[in-house]
Amino acid sequence: MSYARTTCFSGYCWGLDESQVIVLGAPLEETTSYRPGTRFAPRAIREASAYIEYWSLRGKLDVDEHVRFYDAGDALVEQPLEKALEAIGDAVERLSGVGKPLVVMGGEHTITLGIVEGLVRAGYKPCMVQLDAHMDMRSEYAGRRVSHATFARLVVSEVGVPVVLAGVRGFVREELEFARANHVPVIDAHRLQDESVAAVIPAVSKLIEKSVCNHLHLTLDMDVVDPGFAPGVSNPEPEGITPRILLDIVFEVARLAVLRGMSLSMDVVEVSPPYDAGGVTSVLAAKAIVEFAAGVVAARSSAR
Amino acid sequence: MSYARTTCFSGYCWGLDESQVIVLGAPLEETTSYRPGTRFAPRAIREASAYIEYWSLRGKLDVDEHVRFYDAGDALVEQPLEKALEAIGDAVERLSGVGKPLVVMGGEHTITLGIVEGLVRAGYKPCMVQLDAHMDMRSEYAGRRVSHATFARLVVSEVGVPVVLAGVRGFVREELEFARANHVPVIDAHRLQDESVAAVIPAVSKLIEKSVCNHLHLTLDMDVVDPGFAPGVSNPEPEGITPRILLDIVFEVARLAVLRGMSLSMDVVEVSPPYDAGGVTSVLAAKAIVEFAAGVVAARSSAR
Amino acid sequence: MSYARTTCFSGYCWGLDESQVIVLGAPLEETTSYRPGTRFAPRAIREASAYIEYWSLRGKLDVDEHVRFYDAGDALVEQPLEKALEAIGDAVERLSGVGKPLVVMGGEHTITLGIVEGLVRAGYKPCMVQLDAHMDMRSEYAGRRVSHATFARLVVSEVGVPVVLAGVRGFVREELEFARANHVPVIDAHRLQDESVAAVIPAVSKLIEKSVCNHLHLTLDMDVVDPGFAPGVSNPEPEGITPRILLDIVFEVARLAVLRGMSLSMDVVEVSPPYDAGGVTSVLAAKAIVEFAAGVVAARSSAR
Amino acid sequence: MSYARTTCFSGYCWGLDESQVIVLGAPLEETTSYRPGTRFAPRAIREASAYIEYWSLRGKLDVDEHVRFYDAGDALVEQPLEKALEAIGDAVERLSGVGKPLVVMGGEHTITLGIVEGLVRAGYKPCMVQLDAHMDMRSEYAGRRVSHATFARLVVSEVGVPVVLAGVRGFVREELEFARANHVPVIDAHRLQDESVAAVIPAVSKLIEKSVCNHLHLTLDMDVVDPGFAPGVSNPEPEGITPRILLDIVFEVARLAVLRGMSLSMDVVEVSPPYDAGGVTSVLAAKAIVEFAAGVVAARSSAR
Amino acid sequence: MSYARTTCFSGYCWGLDESQVIVLGAPLEETTSYRPGTRFAPRAIREASAYIEYWSLRGKLDVDEHVRFYDAGDALVEQPLEKALEAIGDAVERLSGVGKPLVVMGGEHTITLGIVEGLVRAGYKPCMVQLDAHMDMRSEYAGRRVSHATFARLVVSEVGVPVVLAGVRGFVREELEFARANHVPVIDAHRLQDESVAAVIPAVSKLIEKSVCNHLHLTLDMDVVDPGFAPGVSNPEPEGITPRILLDIVFEVARLAVLRGMSLSMDVVEVSPPYDAGGVTSVLAAKAIVEFAAGVVAARSSAR
Amino acid sequence: MSYARTTCFSGYCWGLDESQVIVLGAPLEETTSYRPGTRFAPRAIREASAYIEYWSLRGKLDVDEHVRFYDAGDALVEQPLEKALEAIGDAVERLSGVGKPLVVMGGEHTITLGIVEGLVRAGYKPCMVQLDAHMDMRSEYAGRRVSHATFARLVVSEVGVPVVLAGVRGFVREELEFARANHVPVIDAHRLQDESVAAVIPAVSKLIEKSVCNHLHLTLDMDVVDPGFAPGVSNPEPEGITPRILLDIVFEVARLAVLRGMSLSMDVVEVSPPYDAGGVTSVLAAKAIVEFAAGVVAARSSAR
Ligand SMILES: [Mn+2]
Ligand SMILES: [Mn+2]
Ligand SMILES: [Mn+2]
Ligand SMILES: [Mn+2]
Ligand SMILES: [Mn+2]
Ligand SMILES: [Mn+2]
Ligand SMILES: [Mn+2]
Ligand SMILES: [Mn+2]
Ligand SMILES: [Mn+2]
Ligand SMILES: [Mn+2]
Ligand SMILES: [Mn+2]
Ligand SMILES: [Mn+2]
Repeated sequence: MSYARTTCFSGYCWGLDESQVIVLGAPLEETTSYRPGTRFAPRAIREASAYIEYWSLRGKLDVDEHVRFYDAGDALVEQPLEKALEAIGDAVERLSGVGKPLVVMGGEHTITLGIVEGLVRAGYKPCMVQLDAHMDMRSEYAGRRVSHATFARLVVSEVGVPVVLAGVRGFVREELEFARANHVPVIDAHRLQDESVAAVIPAVSKLIEKSVCNHLHLTLDMDVVDPGFAPGVSNPEPEGITPRILLDIVFEVARLAVLRGMSLSMDVVEVSPPYDAGGVTSVLAAKAIVEFAAGVVAARSSAR
Repeated sequence: MSYARTTCFSGYCWGLDESQVIVLGAPLEETTSYRPGTRFAPRAIREASAYIEYWSLRGKLDVDEHVRFYDAGDALVEQPLEKALEAIGDAVERLSGVGKPLVVMGGEHTITLGIVEGLVRAGYKPCMVQLDAHMDMRSEYAGRRVSHATFARLVVSEVGVPVVLAGVRGFVREELEFARANHVPVIDAHRLQDESVAAVIPAVSKLIEKSVCNHLHLTLDMDVVDPGFAPGVSNPEPEGITPRILLDIVFEVARLAVLRGMSLSMDVVEVSPPYDAGGVTSVLAAKAIVEFAAGVVAARSSAR
Repeated sequence: MSYARTTCFSGYCWGLDESQVIVLGAPLEETTSYRPGTRFAPRAIREASAYIEYWSLRGKLDVDEHVRFYDAGDALVEQPLEKALEAIGDAVERLSGVGKPLVVMGGEHTITLGIVEGLVRAGYKPCMVQLDAHMDMRSEYAGRRVSHATFARLVVSEVGVPVVLAGVRGFVREELEFARANHVPVIDAHRLQDESVAAVIPAVSKLIEKSVCNHLHLTLDMDVVDPGFAPGVSNPEPEGITPRILLDIVFEVARLAVLRGMSLSMDVVEVSPPYDAGGVTSVLAAKAIVEFAAGVVAARSSAR
Repeated sequence: MSYARTTCFSGYCWGLDESQVIVLGAPLEETTSYRPGTRFAPRAIREASAYIEYWSLRGKLDVDEHVRFYDAGDALVEQPLEKALEAIGDAVERLSGVGKPLVVMGGEHTITLGIVEGLVRAGYKPCMVQLDAHMDMRSEYAGRRVSHATFARLVVSEVGVPVVLAGVRGFVREELEFARANHVPVIDAHRLQDESVAAVIPAVSKLIEKSVCNHLHLTLDMDVVDPGFAPGVSNPEPEGITPRILLDIVFEVARLAVLRGMSLSMDVVEVSPPYDAGGVTSVLAAKAIVEFAAGVVAARSSAR
Repeated sequence: MSYARTTCFSGYCWGLDESQVIVLGAPLEETTSYRPGTRFAPRAIREASAYIEYWSLRGKLDVDEHVRFYDAGDALVEQPLEKALEAIGDAVERLSGVGKPLVVMGGEHTITLGIVEGLVRAGYKPCMVQLDAHMDMRSEYAGRRVSHATFARLVVSEVGVPVVLAGVRGFVREELEFARANHVPVIDAHRLQDESVAAVIPAVSKLIEKSVCNHLHLTLDMDVVDPGFAPGVSNPEPEGITPRILLDIVFEVARLAVLRGMSLSMDVVEVSPPYDAGGVTSVLAAKAIVEFAAGVVAARSSAR
Repeated sequence: MSYARTTCFSGYCWGLDESQVIVLGAPLEETTSYRPGTRFAPRAIREASAYIEYWSLRGKLDVDEHVRFYDAGDALVEQPLEKALEAIGDAVERLSGVGKPLVVMGGEHTITLGIVEGLVRAGYKPCMVQLDAHMDMRSEYAGRRVSHATFARLVVSEVGVPVVLAGVRGFVREELEFARANHVPVIDAHRLQDESVAAVIPAVSKLIEKSVCNHLHLTLDMDVVDPGFAPGVSNPEPEGITPRILLDIVFEVARLAVLRGMSLSMDVVEVSPPYDAGGVTSVLAAKAIVEFAAGVVAARSSAR
């Protein structure tokens, strides 16, 4: 005795076994310094996902025909921060173990630290591609060592994950120096907008080859997009990329990972619904997840 | 392998068997003539329900300690209107058959026609208490015979349900005449605000005694409340009652039905989240459901 | 060859000859010091007027059955302020000459100065009832002699109109002293909320008797209502009256004027749609106009 | 005795005889499945039209100097859907008979079916250019055969109108197959953004030549534009075109029709003011109507 | 060389020496579980304070004539929570030492713990009056021992401050039991609305007499007011008190303290501007500070 | 005894002597004809400035390391308009005399007339670069000779300042003719978007050479940007430039002035926070000020 729910990603509540892609919410909001609201993002992205179209111009296919999403609900986010990151990591550890592409919907960017730790605990050797207006590589921020402004430094220096960073335009000197010292390739926002996917894929390919990673994690801070197209973020920063370039990169990164025989995951973070005028940021975030799935399907089709 | 969801009413997803009250969504929006948005109400009320407190000043008890809600999700609302009302009626028929108090979250007021038809199909003989700024007893509205402005006439004349109507202040002459001709007691908004529950309970008692109904259905059009306290409705009409009087009536009606040994149900309709400035209407709607449950618990406690 | 418009007050575009009440817009916004937006009020009130109900609980009648509104459109509001006030005055002069009750929708409160000057030019001897959170009797404000904060002083001292002032709670000493020196009865907000219409009608009656006015003008600054019920105003001031008391006064003042054989007019000012969360202030403003018409109809019916 | 109104398109209420372009509202909202609000669009577009500038960079001319708009008001939109479409068709039949370019402001996209039927009843043989993120060529949607998601299929298969479709990015396989089977040229969003007007005009020219149509109808679903520039639509879909390309196409299509000696019309649909953050979508819709008029003027000037 | 600023409380930036009342901001937001935004409250309350009127109906005086506010700016709120509370406490310690009434604008309710600790460090023996919809006396909340839902328990049990609690309607059993066990008088929301200041002053008088406190601190959680009048709060809870009763209590408590020869302070917390539809909550918060000052002035005048 | 404030530009309140760039607010809003709200812009831009990043991709430097901003507060804006413009001019006269780059945050565009008059009174010979969707060169507007739609004509014809105008797309014939007759180079919006800074710098260089100005003033009407990126303006006009081109021009114009040894200033006007969906316009305005400072720093560095 059960009636239709519209609260799972895509509007359908498929079971884990019948699914091709897994979706998890992580509504963490603890270190947000400016505009609050990321705690409401998983809900808003799920809602948007029920209404957008699932055709992919890039894959020339209807994602709806190929992918059923399993929505695992939200990880339990409780105080203190360490406990929340651990809960997110535990969920990722178990869900990534299933061997299907996994998408996590934040929440603030700090969740990515929990995610990569979960991947490592699950036995993966992840490489990470970070699309972000910021570097998130400070040594400390607002009195915290672990925060949305420091997490990527910890991913590199403590978890030991190789990273490619693209779309940046707002950072401080210590972040730039950390990136250089740690051999993190940095593609700034102007170059990313001008060269698009052509600036990213070679860097990712090189990273994969150089490192010995067997898993690709794409972390998508929605503030990498221009505030005109994605106003609903915690820290809007002018001069971001267009949605088309964002989706090009998401599709190609997913495709690359599958073609290389790697397992893969993605997170979409920093969406802040209270500031999302017209709801366009949630819609774009949902579309990015669809295009991620399209990249997976396209790669598998071409592989056949 | 499943993580915490916050999308069930009360924030917890209890099973049907372990529950004391059942909740169902009916996001119907088809005949709304003025401010649209009731389609989003079940989602908004569920969200509000996860954050408010469950203490009842009237019952002097914590509803959380006594009631677990089973959230049956949303009834499938599809075109045409008749099909949607039938689907709502089917859900109500089955869920009311379980023998636990049932709450339906609209959607527009038209769902109440589907609900009472479902109750009748389940074998109940319902009486209805309608709290509303309007009578909803027109013979036709905007070219439609079945609509949010006509449903109560059909409940009376076609389904044959005895009705008490309270809180009205906006109507036309044919509605007033229909009510009189059909012996519907009408308590207007001024009197309801002045006399509160004392104006309602005697009328309901008399209705129950006079009729041979064994089930009490309370239909709560949130526009009965003053727009200052409930701005998020399709048709705001000044001079409504205060939240305190609303909750007094909800509590006492629920209590009365249980004390009389009747089965009972409620619907909460016409909430329009896009117009719900500050979210206060959804919060009040959620609280009304909690106070309904409190009335049930209080009656059962006193009965013991 | 013409299709339905919904842009006249009440949703119907009646001709002047077939009408019983005249409505005029005066979207003046020039001296507003705090929250802007009154320029959009006539549009918003017209929109609300097309959807609310026209039943009057006070008159026990459907205003729709008795009153057709002629909507004269908006007076041409142009720079400088003097020119705009003159245009409003000219419109009022001509429209009031028709001999039907006239309602002007502001715009900022300064329009009332133009209105009473127009009434005087049309040959009337007006008395004025002002419902307002403020006195608007400063000698100067923000460098201006004529403004929304000074107009009432000019109405009294320059146009020579006797005034009753009710609902006030925000003012400075010089205003209080001016009111006292000029024999303006002042009913503060606490007393108005406690005594309602009973505090107003005797004062108005005395004013009419003492003066030799043959026309009653009611000026309704919507900030007289509590911001909880009327958030969409330029200068929200806590502790206002409830909508029910507002409508009681509007109805009774209109009724009184007709019963005394006086001609009458009203303005509704200071509504600021950009701040009107949930649209409830425009709805209440529209309802006040309906209840004004109801008072007229009720008086005429009882007179027969 | 009449005062200035600002409720006609362009802010001026010209008569039919003195006008060069006719504007009609069609606030139909009946089959909208996702974000409601198109019922309020004609009002919002008229408001925006009173404030924007009328210079055309493309035509190098001030539209205000050449075009007076006759605003015919809104077609009467009543239940059921068939009746509403017929009323819209009747209005179009009569107004298009006047022989002046006609613009219809929706409302949802379904109105276009009524419009082309009206054009046919008026004796025209229309061809249609559709700018849309979607194909609107489903065989059924949400239980309806006639809806905003199916109307274009009916325009092609039942009314027999040849169509060019541009800007699409969200659709399902059956729509793509229908378009192919019916020889509908489809220019997807990526190609439209890359090639702009150069992708459209040859397709339209070929259509005109191949078919024997003597009237060109341009239907403009505002969701063809990227949600960053046009958030206020029912179904936002990422990766739309820029406003500049939109206006290029509108101008050139209007110009082409006049140069070919064809009569012409346009509709602008799917604007949803409640979601129109900052009001930019209504402004763009109004500008599209101005640029349509500019295209007409430019063609006539060059023809002389 | 300095120009007019409008960013100090009251719109004027007076010096400490020339001031009669001190204002401090404490934009702490760290443990907020539901609706975020209290971090923006000091800014919003300051803005509102520059526009409201300073007349007090209760004191029959213009506060502007008697009180100049010194705005000390915002305390530095940094991670972790303990450090922020200490910074707030330090500021309070120093500012309260000046011997003038002090008002702190939150921020979440947790700041009150820092405030009372600062008062104690400054050598005061404070008693506290808490107006709140909630008790804030849980032993733990969302994994935290110190939070907006636990602070009052710590104020009582760890700082040893006697408390009177009024306006409550949402709480759990352990809070009620803690209050009883610790002799905290509890006036629930229904009683507070019915009896108003008459329910509070005797309880406060008794508290002062029974205890040996020489300082009175009034903590005002704006959610004590009904959400219809104060929508902009983190945790809206229906059935709150009206603004008039709130201001009655604020005025009388301030007056009482001065008449008893006690020093005094107040905080206004939990205002959440992003949810403050129409800005009415910030306006009411600013007015409460004005009425607090009025109470002080009135007491001193009567004392003379 | 003073605590951290966040109300100065950049979030830090530096003294005049220790500063490198001066910021002044001018919240004038008097002649705004369409969407009000520019009175709130200085406050909103200051708030945004406290959160954005200060890295400049163009200068490859952190502005925070080189520039401390002195925030002079707001000029006192009082009635009548002439007095307000004089007050703004006086502030500019004194602050520009300090010899540091000066930025004025409007307010409506009319303030620029006051600014250039102040510059002239301070002894400068200014040239002006105007980025604007409009020309602002009408001879009269809405009954006013001095307004946001006429100010640039007065700057040219009465103050005698040479002007370059770029980004225009909305104007009337008399403005175009005035520009031509007065040798004002005009770069329209299409050309500015296509050629970017390459279209502007040569025109500015020529202007500087041809004229004998020793000061460069850049006036930035935010409506020059496309409404998709800058919705929060009084008069949104489609087809504006992108943020990247805007910032390119701001940076290069500032750099050019310093390299030529000229003193320089900028204003940022027409931001309307009530319409600034998602706050993105204020963020972009704040960033433009940062990039202006970056241009100054970059020029000085290269000069060394
Ligand atoms: Mn970021
Ligand atoms: Mn990030
Ligand atoms: Mn109703
Ligand atoms: Mn109803
Ligand atoms: Mn007032
Ligand atoms: Mn007033
Ligand atoms: Mn579409
Ligand atoms: Mn369409
Ligand atoms: Mn509370
Ligand atoms: Mn509290
Ligand atoms: Mn402009
Ligand atoms: Mn300008």
